[in-house]
Amino acid sequence: MTINKAQQVFPRAEYLRRLTAVKAEMARRQIDALVVSFDRNMNYLTGYTARSGYIPQGLVVLIHEEEPTIILRKMDVAAAHHQTFLSRDKVVGYPESLIGSRDKDGYDAVIDFVQEAGAANGGVGLEFANLPPAAVDKFRARLPKAKIVDFTSVITWIRMVKSDLEISLMKEAAAITDAAILRAAEVIRPGVREADAAAEIVATLARGANGKPGTSLASFWMNSSPRTGTSHLTWSDDVFRNDSQVNLEIAGVRYTYTAPMSRTFSIGRPSDRLRRVHEAQIAGLEAALETIRAGRTCSDVAQAAHRALAKHGVEKESRYGYPVGIDWTEQTASLKEGDMTELKPNMTFHVHLGNWIDEDFGVMVSQCIRVTEAGVEVLTEAPLKLIELPTAA
Amino acid sequence: MTINKAQQVFPRAEYLRRLTAVKAEMARRQIDALVVSFDRNMNYLTGYTARSGYIPQGLVVLIHEEEPTIILRKMDVAAAHHQTFLSRDKVVGYPESLIGSRDKDGYDAVIDFVQEAGAANGGVGLEFANLPPAAVDKFRARLPKAKIVDFTSVITWIRMVKSDLEISLMKEAAAITDAAILRAAEVIRPGVREADAAAEIVATLARGANGKPGTSLASFWMNSSPRTGTSHLTWSDDVFRNDSQVNLEIAGVRYTYTAPMSRTFSIGRPSDRLRRVHEAQIAGLEAALETIRAGRTCSDVAQAAHRALAKHGVEKESRYGYPVGIDWTEQTASLKEGDMTELKPNMTFHVHLGNWIDEDFGVMVSQCIRVTEAGVEVLTEAPLKLIELPTAA
Repeated sequence: MTINKAQQVFPRAEYLRRLTAVKAEMARRQIDALVVSFDRNMNYLTGYTARSGYIPQGLVVLIHEEEPTIILRKMDVAAAHHQTFLSRDKVVGYPESLIGSRDKDGYDAVIDFVQEAGAANGGVGLEFANLPPAAVDKFRARLPKAKIVDFTSVITWIRMVKSDLEISLMKEAAAITDAAILRAAEVIRPGVREADAAAEIVATLARGANGKPGTSLASFWMNSSPRTGTSHLTWSDDVFRNDSQVNLEIAGVRYTYTAPMSRTFSIGRPSDRLRRVHEAQIAGLEAALETIRAGRTCSDVAQAAHRALAKHGVEKESRYGYPVGIDWTEQTASLKEGDMTELKPNMTFHVHLGNWIDEDFGVMVSQCIRVTEAGVEVLTEAPLKLIELPTAA
Repeated sequence: MTINKAQQVFPRAEYLRRLTAVKAEMARRQIDALVVSFDRNMNYLTGYTARSGYIPQGLVVLIHEEEPTIILRKMDVAAAHHQTFLSRDKVVGYPESLIGSRDKDGYDAVIDFVQEAGAANGGVGLEFANLPPAAVDKFRARLPKAKIVDFTSVITWIRMVKSDLEISLMKEAAAITDAAILRAAEVIRPGVREADAAAEIVATLARGANGKPGTSLASFWMNSSPRTGTSHLTWSDDVFRNDSQVNLEIAGVRYTYTAPMSRTFSIGRPSDRLRRVHEAQIAGLEAALETIRAGRTCSDVAQAAHRALAKHGVEKESRYGYPVGIDWTEQTASLKEGDMTELKPNMTFHVHLGNWIDEDFGVMVSQCIRVTEAGVEVLTEAPLKLIELPTAA
C-alpha cells in the first residue's frame, strides 16, 4: 500500500517560491542541474525531515522542471512520499545493494539521474562542502563533459530571509524555548543531579507549548560550575550545589525551525564578578538589539555591542551571534566587525552574548530575534536577566 | 584560572593502548603525522566529547610522540583541558579571527602545527571522508612536499574491538535503553500525543538507570501508524489510537557509548500480518544470534538470518545490523551477505531485524550484543517480543 501524504507544513506555493529563488541563482551561474546534498537545504526545498543523510542522497533541481526529484535509499522513500510536497514520480529510491558496497554508492544513482535527465553536458551545481571529496571526484569522473560549479552555501544564503509562514514556526519554536527555560528555573536546585534537571528540560522541549509539540530535539548545552568556561558540553554526572552557576543554551523546534536561547542561572547570590559581567553582557545585548533594523549591517550590530561592553570594562572575542532557522545555525553571515552583510526584514538571528572569559568562567545571555523595517522583534518572552535560584539550607 | 581535570572516564593507559594501535597503522602506511578530523575518533583517542566539530578542528598524532595534540577553536580549549587525558601543552587554541574568515580557517592552524612539528616533508595522514574537499586541497597546497595519505575509517576499524572498560560502558548504556523501552510501554496509550510519550522516553534516557545517568541523547526514532514503513523520522504531531502500531528505536548513552534497541508496539491485538512478520523477524534475529561467535563472518550471520526469514516466507532487503559503539553506528562492516569481516571477541553489534516492507508497513526488532569466543552476550534485558499495549474503551 502507498503511504498517505502527511498534513503539509507549508503550502505548495511556498516551496515553489523557494525553488524560484534557487533557480534564479542557478541561471546566473549557468547551471542546468543542481544536486542539493546539504540536508537542511533538502528540507527547505521539499519538507523532508528524515535523518537519512548519513548515507549518500541528493535532491536534483532541473532548471526547466517545476518540481525537483529526491533520490534516496529505498528505505527512506516512504518518508519522502509522506512528508514532501513532491509528486510520487519525483521520489526515487536506490537499491540496498549500493549501501556498504566498494564500487558504487548512492551518488551513482544521483549521477545516473542527471545523465538520464540530459544534463550531463551542461552546468552541474554541487554543494562541495556537503559532499565527501571522493563523491566530488566521482561526479567529475562520471560527468566528464559537464561544467561542475560549486553551489556551496548559496541556498543557505537564500534561507536567511524568512517568509511570514517561516516566522510563525520560529515563534512557535520560541514559545517552546520559553517553556523549557522556565522549567529549568524550577528544577535546577542544590542536590539535584544535572541529568535529572536535563530530563525535565528535554521533556518540556518535546511536549512543547500552547498545544504545539516540539517536533524534534535540538542540541542541548548545560555547562555548570566549574565548566562555565566551556560552551559545547551536555550536562555532566555532577549534582548542583549552593553557589553553582549554570549556563544553559537550549532551543525549541517546530518542523526543523529552531529558536535558541541562552541564560545564566545562579544558585544563590551571584558573585560580584558574575553580576558585573552579566550586567555588561545585558548592556551589550541591548545595544545590539537597538542597532538592528533593515539597512544596518552585521558589523554595525557587533560594533554597538562591543562599545557597550567596553563601557563596562568587558571584552568579548567571539562574534555576537548568527542567523538561525532550520536546524539552528545558518552558516552565512556573522554578527562581527567587518561583516558587511546588510540586514533585511524577516532575517532571524540568535544575538548571543556568550563570553568564555577564563577556562573556568563564562557568562551567556541571548535573544532570538527577527529583523523588521523599523527595528527588531524578540521572538521569546523569557525574562532577560541573570536568573537567581534558591539555595538549600 | 585554569579549569580542573574532570574525573576521567578511562585511565591514561587505555588511551595509550588505543594510540599504539593507531600508530601501528600509521607506521604501516609510512605516516609521520596523522590529522584526525572525525569527531568520534577524536573522542576515542582523547576523551573529548564537546560538539565543536561544526567548525574546523583536528587531533594531530605524531608517530614519535606519546600524546597527540588537539587543535581547537579557542572557546573549546577549556572543555579539552577538563575532559581529555592530555597534558596542558597538548591542547592548542586557535584565535577567533579564523572563524568566518574567507582566507584562513582552523585548518590553517592545524597545518601550521604539522609544519612546526617538522612533519611537512613526510607522510601526512588525513581522514578524507571527514573533511570538506576545500580542506583537503588546502592541506595539499600548504604541504606540497608531504606525501598525503587517506586514513579514512582506519581508526573506526580499530574501534570495532572494544576493551573490557568499553564493554562496561556499553552495558551501562544498555541498562538505560532497557529503562526507556519499559517506560515507553507504560506511556504509549490511545489518546496520548506522540510528543508526550516521547517526552517521557527522552527524560528516562537522560535520567539513566542504576544511578548512572545518561550523558547525552542519541537520535530518537518513533514511527507510528501510518509511518511504520519509514525508518528515520522522530515522532509526529499525531495522537496514538486504538490499533496503532509503533516502531521505536532508541539508545541509552554513557560517555558516547551507545546501546540501541528497536521494538515494535501494538496498541491492542496486532493484525495477523504484523504478528506473522514479527514472528519471522524474531526467528531471523535468533538465528543470527545463534550464529554469532568469534571466527564466524558477518556474511555467515546474515545468511542464517536470511534463511530463517525465508522459512517464514518473509524477505528483507537491507542488512541485518552493524557495529556499534561511540555515537551509535560504526561505519565499517555490515551484517550482510558477502561481508567477510571476521567476528572477534568484544566486537559489539546492533543486530537489527528492521524490515520496511511496504510504504505503510514495517516491523522492527533488534538486540544489542557483544561477540564472545563461544557465542554472544546480549547487553540489554528488555523482553524480546512484540509488545502489546492496552486499548482505550
